[in-house]
Amino acid sequence: MKEHKIRAIVWGCGQMGQIIIRYLQEKGVELVGAIDRNASRVGKDAGEISTLKRFLGIPIYHPDKAEQVFQKANANVCIICTRSLLTEIYDSLEMAAQHGVNAITLGEEAFYPWTTSRDLSEKLDTLAKKHNCTITGSGYQDVFGGHLITSVAAASHRIDRIQILTRYNIAQYGSFALDLNGVGLSVDAFKQTIATSKEPFVNWYVNEWLCSRLGWSIRTQNQELLPTTNTEIIHVTSAGIDIPVGDVTGMEAVVTTETEEGPIIESHLMGKVYTHSDIDIYECTLIGEPNTTLTIRQPGTPEITCASLVNRLPQLIDAPPGFQTTDKMPSPNYWTLPLHNS
Amino acid sequence: MKEHKIRAIVWGCGQMGQIIIRYLQEKGVELVGAIDRNASRVGKDAGEISTLKRFLGIPIYHPDKAEQVFQKANANVCIICTRSLLTEIYDSLEMAAQHGVNAITLGEEAFYPWTTSRDLSEKLDTLAKKHNCTITGSGYQDVFGGHLITSVAAASHRIDRIQILTRYNIAQYGSFALDLNGVGLSVDAFKQTIATSKEPFVNWYVNEWLCSRLGWSIRTQNQELLPTTNTEIIHVTSAGIDIPVGDVTGMEAVVTTETEEGPIIESHLMGKVYTHSDIDIYECTLIGEPNTTLTIRQPGTPEITCASLVNRLPQLIDAPPGFQTTDKMPSPNYWTLPLHNS
Repeated sequence: MKEHKIRAIVWGCGQMGQIIIRYLQEKGVELVGAIDRNASRVGKDAGEISTLKRFLGIPIYHPDKAEQVFQKANANVCIICTRSLLTEIYDSLEMAAQHGVNAITLGEEAFYPWTTSRDLSEKLDTLAKKHNCTITGSGYQDVFGGHLITSVAAASHRIDRIQILTRYNIAQYGSFALDLNGVGLSVDAFKQTIATSKEPFVNWYVNEWLCSRLGWSIRTQNQELLPTTNTEIIHVTSAGIDIPVGDVTGMEAVVTTETEEGPIIESHLMGKVYTHSDIDIYECTLIGEPNTTLTIRQPGTPEITCASLVNRLPQLIDAPPGFQTTDKMPSPNYWTLPLHNS
Repeated sequence: MKEHKIRAIVWGCGQMGQIIIRYLQEKGVELVGAIDRNASRVGKDAGEISTLKRFLGIPIYHPDKAEQVFQKANANVCIICTRSLLTEIYDSLEMAAQHGVNAITLGEEAFYPWTTSRDLSEKLDTLAKKHNCTITGSGYQDVFGGHLITSVAAASHRIDRIQILTRYNIAQYGSFALDLNGVGLSVDAFKQTIATSKEPFVNWYVNEWLCSRLGWSIRTQNQELLPTTNTEIIHVTSAGIDIPVGDVTGMEAVVTTETEEGPIIESHLMGKVYTHSDIDIYECTLIGEPNTTLTIRQPGTPEITCASLVNRLPQLIDAPPGFQTTDKMPSPNYWTLPLHNS
């Protein structure tokens, strides 16, 4: 039970930040600062541009002014929803830690950065400990790539293999995402460019998180980037293009982890331009004794992403200082009351 | 990390006990005693009659000899898989507690007995505290009626209603279960007999457990017992009967809980004789922001039941003394290593 309201700075007021600002308000968290680099948002009221659509008296500042925002806000949490990689969000995490402010981010790598960005993670861990605050990564994968899977696992006698499939419509994420997934390329061009990338995909961190939580040691972990194609022309309205039959409609990132203990984790993240019959899907299969397949059709991904993060705030505040990934935290909770009464 | 093997007595060597004995062996738990009231099992080797089908040198004793089994076994856990209600399993729980042996049971009421059997639960709680041991209830509902649901809940911003549906084939559970569910009765006869029962069904405890774990106060909780019927004749091979069109093929127990905080829990437990198209299903829907429906088709119910209990053993041993229902425990874990190394 916390006596005082949680005081939050939101860093990144894009699509996710705009939902989070409303969630914070509805859970009794006080917004005390807002930062965004987008010129079209700087100077606007964070409440008004959010899905709350109500004036909160908190203007959005450019990251150049982040130092002043932190000095004035007296925040105890900073929510960072800007980019995916630790190198990209390092400065914001460092700024929060230097001010002794707990930080939580949607940046996917922060979910389990210990292998891919060991040095940066350890530097942040040391800094957070020095300033007595906590850093963590949450979002969609905290529940759907993490604790939901370990919950079902707890009903298994023996796990030989965990298969996770997530499919989403890449056309909803702008032209940057289309390019990143090779949409519109020939399969040959895809294989020579996109498929050669060594950049880990989101499910890379998910597999590592699961191994850590389940007590498994990784022997090998590999990533394959496979093109998806279609047998009919697909028109992509948002990009104004047609994808010919047999050309690339998106990508399936497959990360396969072999463990010393035996079980294999195989996670598939498929982002493609949809045909009429495709729907968003989340599916997790545990093969062993027994076999269990858990399916969620059309999950509300943006809401799940934001709610998972906001529901973590009380545990973030209570966690020991340092960079504490959520595999080391208790399972997350749904909070009914205002978060400061949780 | 426990240095020594867990030493377990299994009380109840029926279908579930026979699976559990194998699971214990495969997880490095030592079987040190076995009790069963069934004359056809007494005197036989517990390993040989189990699904392990291997001699373990542990003869099954009648409950009359339970005192001697406990005195000789030097057990630290007793697994009780006999009956459903606390009144029915009270003696075995008391026997374990008096010997300072932690007890865990599949008895459904023990999952959350605080309302339906308050006095007995408190008596057991006091006894367990006196003898420095722990009592709890686990099984299928520990994950599927409990922690799996609270895991998905943690990805919700707002929950208005939780709907849980479990459907199973009553024909697999013997003639006692068929009678209990009114199979073969006319709908009128069902309404005058079965439907008037005040005995809580399994989902009664599930709703109460969820409210406790989610921090909700129950305002009202009601149970309805509804007959299921079919539009074609169904032949029940196991019972050698035909059920005419429109007569009762089984029952749906619906427990509805209204909470002071607003959310409603509605759980449906449907046990019926199957037609060709029916399959076992588990479905949990959270209505609110967002809506999320999690589906598990054809869950391996017996394996899930037994694995959920066995996976709880390390937490049972580590829990504080008393009757500790699992809503007060950490979320359950899958254990890869032998349990005494967990």
